[in-house]
Amino acid sequence: MIKEIAQITIKPGMDKQFEQGVSQATPLFLRSHGCHGVQLFRSIEQPEQYTLVVDWETVDDHMVLFRESPEFQQWRGLVAETFAAPPNVHHVSKVL
Amino acid sequence: MIKEIAQITIKPGMDKQFEQGVSQATPLFLRSHGCHGVQLFRSIEQPEQYTLVVDWETVDDHMVLFRESPEFQQWRGLVAETFAAPPNVHHVSKVL
Repeated sequence: MIKEIAQITIKPGMDKQFEQGVSQATPLFLRSHGCHGVQLFRSIEQPEQYTLVVDWETVDDHMVLFRESPEFQQWRGLVAETFAAPPNVHHVSKVL
Repeated sequence: MIKEIAQITIKPGMDKQFEQGVSQATPLFLRSHGCHGVQLFRSIEQPEQYTLVVDWETVDDHMVLFRESPEFQQWRGLVAETFAAPPNVHHVSKVL
């Protein structure tokens, strides 16, 4: 199991729209192959910065199966207009 | 409850020393006021990049009480020489 870490900076004043979009998109993630959870965190120091954390069985479940699925297009359709810049995405594995 | 997110880049080849230092330091965090957990993640794309996630009751538990404690000095003593640069630290709260 690995985690997708997506750092997302939104446009000023779009926090409610973005959070609603993530909430609406959560079922799209959860029904995708290998997805085991979605969490959203907001920076305290820089409130326009969010971190989306998605648990996947493998990197390919995210980067191949999900990215090429209609669910990815629906997810981006729900939130893309709130983004100030393209998300910064990487993957991590748990050490401790 | 909030999370401290510390992005730490280590010097090449120091991964075992860094991970051992974090393991040894975990009790220092856990006995500090307001600390409820420590997790360490490693980037899959850039293995010299780690993310330390510490659960605190408040930002001040981390930034005031812990930072001014002997435990903070011990923590940095265990790992500082493995850092390639000063850690990038911020705090997040859970939205979803």
